[in-house]
Amino acid sequence: MLRIGVVGASGYAGGELIRILLGHPEARLTYVGSETYKGQSIAKAFPSLHGSDAPVCESPDAGAAAEKADLVFLAQRNGWATQFAPKLLSAGKSVVDFSADFRFRDGAVFQKWYKLDSPSAEILKSAVYGLPETRADEIKCSSLVANPGCYPTGAILALTPLLANRLIDPSTIIVDSKSGVSGAGRSKFELGYLFSELEGNLKPYNIGVHRHTPEIEQELSAVAGSPVTVSFTPHLVPMVRGILTTTYASLAGQAETASLIDLYRDFYAKAPFVVVFGEGEYPATKNTQGSNYCHIGLKVDDRTGRVVVVSAIDNLVKGAAGQAVQNMNIMCGLDERAGLGSAALYP
Amino acid sequence: MLRIGVVGASGYAGGELIRILLGHPEARLTYVGSETYKGQSIAKAFPSLHGSDAPVCESPDAGAAAEKADLVFLAQRNGWATQFAPKLLSAGKSVVDFSADFRFRDGAVFQKWYKLDSPSAEILKSAVYGLPETRADEIKCSSLVANPGCYPTGAILALTPLLANRLIDPSTIIVDSKSGVSGAGRSKFELGYLFSELEGNLKPYNIGVHRHTPEIEQELSAVAGSPVTVSFTPHLVPMVRGILTTTYASLAGQAETASLIDLYRDFYAKAPFVVVFGEGEYPATKNTQGSNYCHIGLKVDDRTGRVVVVSAIDNLVKGAAGQAVQNMNIMCGLDERAGLGSAALYP
Amino acid sequence: MLRIGVVGASGYAGGELIRILLGHPEARLTYVGSETYKGQSIAKAFPSLHGSDAPVCESPDAGAAAEKADLVFLAQRNGWATQFAPKLLSAGKSVVDFSADFRFRDGAVFQKWYKLDSPSAEILKSAVYGLPETRADEIKCSSLVANPGCYPTGAILALTPLLANRLIDPSTIIVDSKSGVSGAGRSKFELGYLFSELEGNLKPYNIGVHRHTPEIEQELSAVAGSPVTVSFTPHLVPMVRGILTTTYASLAGQAETASLIDLYRDFYAKAPFVVVFGEGEYPATKNTQGSNYCHIGLKVDDRTGRVVVVSAIDNLVKGAAGQAVQNMNIMCGLDERAGLGSAALYP
Amino acid sequence: MLRIGVVGASGYAGGELIRILLGHPEARLTYVGSETYKGQSIAKAFPSLHGSDAPVCESPDAGAAAEKADLVFLAQRNGWATQFAPKLLSAGKSVVDFSADFRFRDGAVFQKWYKLDSPSAEILKSAVYGLPETRADEIKCSSLVANPGCYPTGAILALTPLLANRLIDPSTIIVDSKSGVSGAGRSKFELGYLFSELEGNLKPYNIGVHRHTPEIEQELSAVAGSPVTVSFTPHLVPMVRGILTTTYASLAGQAETASLIDLYRDFYAKAPFVVVFGEGEYPATKNTQGSNYCHIGLKVDDRTGRVVVVSAIDNLVKGAAGQAVQNMNIMCGLDERAGLGSAALYP
Repeated sequence: MLRIGVVGASGYAGGELIRILLGHPEARLTYVGSETYKGQSIAKAFPSLHGSDAPVCESPDAGAAAEKADLVFLAQRNGWATQFAPKLLSAGKSVVDFSADFRFRDGAVFQKWYKLDSPSAEILKSAVYGLPETRADEIKCSSLVANPGCYPTGAILALTPLLANRLIDPSTIIVDSKSGVSGAGRSKFELGYLFSELEGNLKPYNIGVHRHTPEIEQELSAVAGSPVTVSFTPHLVPMVRGILTTTYASLAGQAETASLIDLYRDFYAKAPFVVVFGEGEYPATKNTQGSNYCHIGLKVDDRTGRVVVVSAIDNLVKGAAGQAVQNMNIMCGLDERAGLGSAALYP
Repeated sequence: MLRIGVVGASGYAGGELIRILLGHPEARLTYVGSETYKGQSIAKAFPSLHGSDAPVCESPDAGAAAEKADLVFLAQRNGWATQFAPKLLSAGKSVVDFSADFRFRDGAVFQKWYKLDSPSAEILKSAVYGLPETRADEIKCSSLVANPGCYPTGAILALTPLLANRLIDPSTIIVDSKSGVSGAGRSKFELGYLFSELEGNLKPYNIGVHRHTPEIEQELSAVAGSPVTVSFTPHLVPMVRGILTTTYASLAGQAETASLIDLYRDFYAKAPFVVVFGEGEYPATKNTQGSNYCHIGLKVDDRTGRVVVVSAIDNLVKGAAGQAVQNMNIMCGLDERAGLGSAALYP
Repeated sequence: MLRIGVVGASGYAGGELIRILLGHPEARLTYVGSETYKGQSIAKAFPSLHGSDAPVCESPDAGAAAEKADLVFLAQRNGWATQFAPKLLSAGKSVVDFSADFRFRDGAVFQKWYKLDSPSAEILKSAVYGLPETRADEIKCSSLVANPGCYPTGAILALTPLLANRLIDPSTIIVDSKSGVSGAGRSKFELGYLFSELEGNLKPYNIGVHRHTPEIEQELSAVAGSPVTVSFTPHLVPMVRGILTTTYASLAGQAETASLIDLYRDFYAKAPFVVVFGEGEYPATKNTQGSNYCHIGLKVDDRTGRVVVVSAIDNLVKGAAGQAVQNMNIMCGLDERAGLGSAALYP
Repeated sequence: MLRIGVVGASGYAGGELIRILLGHPEARLTYVGSETYKGQSIAKAFPSLHGSDAPVCESPDAGAAAEKADLVFLAQRNGWATQFAPKLLSAGKSVVDFSADFRFRDGAVFQKWYKLDSPSAEILKSAVYGLPETRADEIKCSSLVANPGCYPTGAILALTPLLANRLIDPSTIIVDSKSGVSGAGRSKFELGYLFSELEGNLKPYNIGVHRHTPEIEQELSAVAGSPVTVSFTPHLVPMVRGILTTTYASLAGQAETASLIDLYRDFYAKAPFVVVFGEGEYPATKNTQGSNYCHIGLKVDDRTGRVVVVSAIDNLVKGAAGQAVQNMNIMCGLDERAGLGSAALYP
């Protein structure tokens, strides 16, 4: 039985992680760190966890975490893990980090977009970008995995098969994403996140300047083998969970919807959490609610010579906590699906 | 491994049942009956079940069900199981029925409120009202369990400890219930259930004439040892899942909030799915989303001499599919919590 | 043309007031006070007001307000108007105040429930509780009107005809109210008001201790001619606007639904904003969205000897800004409906 | 006072039209046609109209409409007005039609995309595409105006200033639209439109084949002076009203956000319902709720050489009933803003 620690337990991603871990057959939650709820049950933060069995929250401490756990999830704000993770690593522990700290191969990109000090080049070299569908082999050998951002997960899974097969012109990619509000986290006590402001309301934000842009570009560039730049527009949708990503690109040559669907199915044949829909069927976010699945649908538009690929995920599961557990499973040699088998909650 | 059948798989309760059963450690789904989806995967009805492992749907047939399953869940419209269940029972199979057909000890009550023929007196005598927190012993010995209605589950769990201890005047009970829309089921294609009609909208319906009224009264009367009549008003709330039941009653004597909370905790000490909140804390439906828990909070109002007890459940889980699996577990001698341990999905 | 001032313009009630006043045929907005937005257009606070014509916001000042306006609406937190209103009154101006400061005839009740200093007895004596359907004559002669709370408006309109005609036992009244979230205002930047916490969620709060309780009781007692105590439970519903109030009371004698409906229609025959529904029809909040109407439906339950009366209002209009303008119209001798004629926004 | 008829009053666009017309200072509703509600008050269809003054519904009849009204709005399904409108026109009446029947200059395009018989070439020649911001002069002289579709309104207003000034490459246009559910109308009683299916759910539909595509292209081609083809993807968002349209195009040359904003403001200087936001500010649908405004925000993305223009409208107002009244005002020589001045309902 793996001993698992969670630091930053009272955020939405942290709470979701605990929910998943409590049902994991081969992991036991042995350390819960939360500054806000130290000394209290996690059910104080999440009454939805009443009746569950989790250790009392402690003030986050690397020594205590390293002592009590074999692998620690860090679900804190950007910049925090840069200080905390090295202590766990040098104690021989494994780390899955939810922040952006270790996602970039080039620390300068992190510094530019996040206005924070980058981790050392050495530690960045040891970190792996934790998207199991594209980097399972590296994850398997790593003790520091940077869990991907929610938007990048949806965008990269939608576009990778096309780029890997050189089927689209990489200079024409548009990524139009629509996210549920839980992606903003649980600690933004601002006007813009009040229920009355968001209910029945839909809006774009950070057009062209969202910090997930370089992350999408880094990974798509790695697939394409050359620098890829994308137009990325995130939108806030009046729902709690789910990201729908609609991507557009010009086809490099002729292609048919049916054959691209086959190609996607082949590409993801060994990916247990990717479902590629048949012709004329498209994803809807609620079909992934609470599950680790990514649903993909696509359509070639002959009139315009473009292909439209749409992906749907639950931003807190495949876009955060579920993917983190999937990474843990791979790092620890477990079945990739362990603890993640449950179907989506519908309706 | 128990072999399990589900008939009526494409409704919301049926889909939820399949979701739960697919994660049950000691049950295997061996028969799925759906007229609408016969010959197709259940993922056709619920894309949320893509990737799951369930048998192809068949046209509902008692013989086939009896052959392939040891216990069969019936999730069809009222009146249907009256014909279907006896065939399974005489083949020696167990049945958990979601409809109202077998809920009433007195067939005349069923006939009056439902305008349908009542099952035979004989079969009604063998049926047990399947609320595990009040009738576990009978459920254990039964092969025909009538799964309770969603509103009655919330109301009975809220009021039973008070009535069992003769702490309230039974003639003063008000039950004001607020339900998510999924309670209306998946086949009401009417103006009133369209998204645009219900979103941002709240309304009462069937005031004083809702068919769950006699069901609540039957069970509360059994607890009180004398006939109990209640005012029951259901409301439709713009959310998908959850029932919040606010109950009012005049106290028979003096009582304090804290001591009543203790009494509730004692009463439900062996009920793994009932959580009684501390003073000043009240349930919120989303804390039970997707889980089999019932959350209860209460308050004595000295100014009026009344006690207010509030319960929250997920109408599709504790109010339907989860409770049915709980019943199955008890009927089959399994741990009551098997397959039902997962925490609520929040937010 | 009346010259009108609004102080506290950037809250939801203030914004709604400006929206209504901008369309009022006999009033001109000449003064807008907002500390937060001083020096800026009100469209900065509410982009929904882009294109509208309103004076630039000023830091709230009684002298400036008195100079520029004939009647001033105060939409500030409780306790604020106690200081501000007297300055306007002594300058000969009229005031409609949205807070609780002037709602209570007995200052001690205000002090006890609000933990704030009460206005002087003298000023309280001059103030009128501004529910036009019950106190139009007093409002007509007043220069200080205390605009009612949102919950009290719905509860008092639902129960007054019964109490005025001594048809119910006043000791049996239950008021179960369900409100949209905008009632919490625009400045509660707390976890509990975030979209992700409230969406798909329903919960009671302040059971038995909500500060609107004594306000409901004061007005119902005045109608009944004897002290009335009620059980009042507010709930937060995942929608932005609307209050549905479900009230229960034991009938003093025999009564039929149809005859009570007639009685309500007679009682409200001269109230242009109250609509009494026919038998079997009940209000739904969205039918009043953005309008000043109050919809009422009722049902006698012979089984229990109770009557259930349900009212629906838009909490920001009939429950706040619309009612305030209705009061202004009456105070200033205009048609009660001026500026308030528009139908509800549906769906 | 203009005498106005509405045919198809019980749909969402029809109900909205009646709401607006009831508040119009120079129009009187003299004829209401509805097959479903004939002989009944329109308040039967829309309880939100209780208290309003509208004629009883009649079975739609061109003779009666022509007799009672000077201008008739037709809000029926596609194909219906092709038969009905000519009768009104030959009686010398004016018509504003909500369907697609008269929107296309080329009847063959209508036939191909709608699979319906096209109106005669003659009548198509006399019809004007009723987008006042681009075709006010033609509308002024017309007695048959084809009211634009909701998606096209948002898309054309977003893109026209760029195309008119040849600032973008017309072959690179992507239109990604997100709509509230009311756009689907009030008569689709299908699984996909039930509340429980759509709440908390987001999905694309009709990718590349939506029938508003040729309408967008027709009007953009007219502006560009050459054939324009666009990729158009509509999405269904869990809200009732509002369309947000996110458009992307490659810039033909260098451009800055600020200068493009100036250009948009110039272009729409005489359009009373178009608001162009400043740099860094973007539209949100709820700021247009219930109003006839179109909000526009834009951003040049230097990294990709693209411009992103976002527009927000209320699909039932600027996208349907409000625009129809705006057309009526222009056709009848009234102030374009008559009856449409009210600010959006927020929140």
